[in-house]
Amino acid sequence: MTVSPNDLANAIRALSMDAVQAANSGHPGMPMGMADVATVLFTQYLKYDAAAPKWHDRDRFVLSAGHGSMLIYAALNLTGYARPTIEDIRNFRQLGSPCAGHPENFELAGVETTTGPLGQGFAAAVGMAIAERHLNAVFGDDLVDHKTWVIAGDGCLMEGINHEAVGLAGHLGLGRLIVLWDDNKITIDGSTDLSTSEDIPARYRASNWHVVACDGHDPVDIARAFDEALTDPRPSLVQCRTIIGKGAPNKQGTSATHGSPLGADEVAAARTTLGWNHAPFEIPADIRAEWEKAGSRGAEAHAAWNKRVTTSDLGAELVRRMDGELPGDFSLAAYKTDLIANPQKVATRKASEMVLGPINEQLPETIGGSADLTGSNNTKTKATGPLTRDDYSGRYVYYGIREFGMAAAMNGMALHGGVIPYGGTFLVFSDYCRPAIRLSALQQTRAIYVMTHDSIGLGEDGPTHQPVEHIMSLRAMPNLDVLRPADVIETAECWELALERKDGPSLLALTRQNLPQLRTDASENLSAKGAYRLRAAKGDRKVVLIATGSEVEIAVGVADMLEAEGVGADVVSMPSWERFAEQDASYRAALIPEDALRVSIEAGTTFGWERHTGSRGLRFGIDSFGASAPAGDLYEHFGLTPAKIAPQVLAALNSI
Amino acid sequence: MTVSPNDLANAIRALSMDAVQAANSGHPGMPMGMADVATVLFTQYLKYDAAAPKWHDRDRFVLSAGHGSMLIYAALNLTGYARPTIEDIRNFRQLGSPCAGHPENFELAGVETTTGPLGQGFAAAVGMAIAERHLNAVFGDDLVDHKTWVIAGDGCLMEGINHEAVGLAGHLGLGRLIVLWDDNKITIDGSTDLSTSEDIPARYRASNWHVVACDGHDPVDIARAFDEALTDPRPSLVQCRTIIGKGAPNKQGTSATHGSPLGADEVAAARTTLGWNHAPFEIPADIRAEWEKAGSRGAEAHAAWNKRVTTSDLGAELVRRMDGELPGDFSLAAYKTDLIANPQKVATRKASEMVLGPINEQLPETIGGSADLTGSNNTKTKATGPLTRDDYSGRYVYYGIREFGMAAAMNGMALHGGVIPYGGTFLVFSDYCRPAIRLSALQQTRAIYVMTHDSIGLGEDGPTHQPVEHIMSLRAMPNLDVLRPADVIETAECWELALERKDGPSLLALTRQNLPQLRTDASENLSAKGAYRLRAAKGDRKVVLIATGSEVEIAVGVADMLEAEGVGADVVSMPSWERFAEQDASYRAALIPEDALRVSIEAGTTFGWERHTGSRGLRFGIDSFGASAPAGDLYEHFGLTPAKIAPQVLAALNSI
Repeated sequence: MTVSPNDLANAIRALSMDAVQAANSGHPGMPMGMADVATVLFTQYLKYDAAAPKWHDRDRFVLSAGHGSMLIYAALNLTGYARPTIEDIRNFRQLGSPCAGHPENFELAGVETTTGPLGQGFAAAVGMAIAERHLNAVFGDDLVDHKTWVIAGDGCLMEGINHEAVGLAGHLGLGRLIVLWDDNKITIDGSTDLSTSEDIPARYRASNWHVVACDGHDPVDIARAFDEALTDPRPSLVQCRTIIGKGAPNKQGTSATHGSPLGADEVAAARTTLGWNHAPFEIPADIRAEWEKAGSRGAEAHAAWNKRVTTSDLGAELVRRMDGELPGDFSLAAYKTDLIANPQKVATRKASEMVLGPINEQLPETIGGSADLTGSNNTKTKATGPLTRDDYSGRYVYYGIREFGMAAAMNGMALHGGVIPYGGTFLVFSDYCRPAIRLSALQQTRAIYVMTHDSIGLGEDGPTHQPVEHIMSLRAMPNLDVLRPADVIETAECWELALERKDGPSLLALTRQNLPQLRTDASENLSAKGAYRLRAAKGDRKVVLIATGSEVEIAVGVADMLEAEGVGADVVSMPSWERFAEQDASYRAALIPEDALRVSIEAGTTFGWERHTGSRGLRFGIDSFGASAPAGDLYEHFGLTPAKIAPQVLAALNSI
Repeated sequence: MTVSPNDLANAIRALSMDAVQAANSGHPGMPMGMADVATVLFTQYLKYDAAAPKWHDRDRFVLSAGHGSMLIYAALNLTGYARPTIEDIRNFRQLGSPCAGHPENFELAGVETTTGPLGQGFAAAVGMAIAERHLNAVFGDDLVDHKTWVIAGDGCLMEGINHEAVGLAGHLGLGRLIVLWDDNKITIDGSTDLSTSEDIPARYRASNWHVVACDGHDPVDIARAFDEALTDPRPSLVQCRTIIGKGAPNKQGTSATHGSPLGADEVAAARTTLGWNHAPFEIPADIRAEWEKAGSRGAEAHAAWNKRVTTSDLGAELVRRMDGELPGDFSLAAYKTDLIANPQKVATRKASEMVLGPINEQLPETIGGSADLTGSNNTKTKATGPLTRDDYSGRYVYYGIREFGMAAAMNGMALHGGVIPYGGTFLVFSDYCRPAIRLSALQQTRAIYVMTHDSIGLGEDGPTHQPVEHIMSLRAMPNLDVLRPADVIETAECWELALERKDGPSLLALTRQNLPQLRTDASENLSAKGAYRLRAAKGDRKVVLIATGSEVEIAVGVADMLEAEGVGADVVSMPSWERFAEQDASYRAALIPEDALRVSIEAGTTFGWERHTGSRGLRFGIDSFGASAPAGDLYEHFGLTPAKIAPQVLAALNSI
């Protein structure tokens, strides 16, 4: 063989520096520095079949240091994935190219998760590794037996979420998770000495990780380290000592290579240094052939796996779960019918726990959890025993006080497939995991957030714990379905919607306080429309009261008082703004007509409610921080009671 | 002396369990478990003067585990602070009591920072310790010489932000920071074994911390550990081995004491166990006297300090800074006048750097920094040399890739006083530090966030890096002033506003891309009104174009095209929604009259713009995630150009 590992790695280097140069934008330093490590990984260790990127039992590879996106684009191209083509790479960072600035899971098969926001790829990989171990425990080694590999940089390791991810992975003993740390001692601002004095291996060891170091430019040493990592039962950190931008003679080893094109002169000099005498985007045939051989290394194993799946009794069930299809007979009809017969006054967090009973019985793919608020979020049911290092078949993760790590792990679990993760915390702490919620939305993952204590209704814990702006600020996020059910029936409906939504996350905002059952009919999932008329005006409709969650009860109270004064008032429950926006205009206009006085009631900011009330409508809510007191006192204090609202509505009617 | 340390500690225990019982809500476990440690701290080590809670040179005490709020309420009451009174404590968690569910800095002097959201008190304490060392370097030991003490629980240590705070403190060698870890092995969900296997002391040592353990119920051993911590030059973690809920005989050591009242029976049993034969809220005179003696321990040192401040040449300057007053002669007038004479087309991030030149020259109290994006956020100027462990007099912190840790530290710095912190990251990563931004707003701290790359205008980095919902979701947060300047003059104005705002945080959203200077007069700070007419319609006004930041230029382009068609169009620049909302109704109505077609243009979500356009207005923006491409292509792609907008405005006019 005339093609050396160095030639293979230089193909990554050349594509990376040339693509960044062509785009006049991007990050050449990381792919050039980690090219040798990536070459060893993709040609010797990673289990994949470039011809079948979605093979369920492939190893997962996560480029957590997503700014080095050219590394994965180069690897996918060279190993023979259908995309990206060289043309795609030529158009790196241009509109329409799947080779976006940072790797996007929705652009390219082979990109397992969108990365770029630092630390989150790593944390998502923890979720992938959890999903793998869980499915392995359920389906056995024959059907599920793969690893999760991560490339992470100093940024990923310095972010707070890393602590959460490392702690969770170490605690769960995820030995098939191997993190390749690009230890180049450079961040954007310069040397890592500027901002950190940490002994990173010691920190990892303190959390039950195995650590091994290697020369990240020596293929033999890299392989030795990988072998050691694979042998150790703990999750592994492979400290790859590298030179950022390796091959660029005048800039390597400095932050100048991190986030800017090398410049034409330095690219030319790098060609000389690397001995790469080929035009930009040209890969010599022998080098490409060697890479493609690596890309088809897994084909045989894939074929054997296909055979095992076909012959196994469990194969069809695994495929169903991996395809993300719910069982055909999944139904909550009986549960809801029962409630209609026996109405319940419970908090919606409790209603969530109730409906999770039949859900978790019928859907073996759910994996629940909470960030140390199990008894408050009501996320655990009989069917979900703990998932522990001693029993991965469990379906409940004690995530610890790690909201962000939990949410990112949920993304990884959903992206891995085969499981539907849901996890709980207080709604106010959606802020702690907001960057991961955003990646759920961007990546279109079926992650289900169970966010309880969703307003001042939580009472005494006070303003630090009371969401005010949260629901609205989450509604502002693209592709997130925010669901705020008003009673036990709507809670069941919202859970149905969240489970049935394959292409994006849902967030349930649930109360701490009890709410009466308002619905008397559950034959149709009315929450699916986003908003619906819960109660029609008795007489001539003058007012439409629009409310969500716990304030629908208040709206009903207001309507009673208005009707008593002879003023007709509809009550509209609006559990989901997103779903309502998708209804046709006639439905929307009929439900919330402009000729009525439109009044919103929600125990959160009024910011944004103009969309539904118009500027002349009334908006009742809270435009300041909350306070510490019993819930009832707070509703009085902030004026969110029928007795306080109804007179203002009447006054507004009289002034029109 | 007949009063033992145990008697003193039991006073904390009794007040805590009784207050929680009376409120029927709260967390007795932590205050009862840490009562002995707190007693040693408040009676022997903490430097404070209960009669003068704001003494500038006091030690700072942060109850990071804020749910244990009764611990600090008890300590403040017992040591003789004016508030809380016993009556306040009786009303724990009731409306109007300063004894809120979690400690609030705006409710009680002696509460240095609002805590409850886990991990943030600890991280704020890092900022306090930075401010102390910095001011010490500037003003000397005679005027600034105090410590920062923290009580933190397992939750604070498990949160991701802890990694950032620990890393920053260790790197900066903040030896006067002493963290008392309540090592009780219990979280809400149960034993810490459920969710973590971490060797916490090893992790701290890996980040250049000193760790010492003690029996948290043995005053002598606690004092020994404190002494060791004070001697060691590194920041210290004191591992206090405690029993949660100590004194409650049937529940201590379990999570049952964490977040619920003990119940009347257990409270009675605890009285027996503790030998506390006093009615609820009654403190025997001898015990109170001993506590009050502790509370006045610092009076003498305080008086001596007062004398030193009065006699020192530097005293007045220290007091000015600690009082948060800007120098009387602070002015950017010359800077702005210069710009009017020599207009500049620069990115607003560059404009920010430019104005930071004179700001940092004139205001020695600013301390800048960035979360590893110094060259991108343009946050460093000539006057701000690095603040390092070897030179705390520096004024620039290399925060590392620690957005959340940075923001929390900024809160601590602002709360400490004497400095005005500003720090940068990309706007999209405001999500990473959003929980700390919320605490800035709640705590009314003068923290200034410099958030650059504020839209698709950042270009190729793509959707993970392009804010869409961020500006709007930040506007939804109470008490945060979101400032999005349109040119170099507005950038200077917004900086003035942020600096002059003593009672809350400001966030500047700044562009990566260049913007023309639109303002031709800088004699008045027009941004102070939140919105103003940048350009008036030439003829009859039919349209009002409202834009912010980089889209004001586009609005001007649209106005040009409309005017060319004979349609009069005002252009309103709206750098701050919050400030505009504070203007009187006549100003607002005159600026954005309902009889005009109101059109908003902002390269972010249109969500919320109905407030200003009305439902019949037009809203141009981006209601999906962004994409990776050069900025110009993206503005075309998303339809945010005059050529794409103007025809739609004309069409809308014609259809009215």
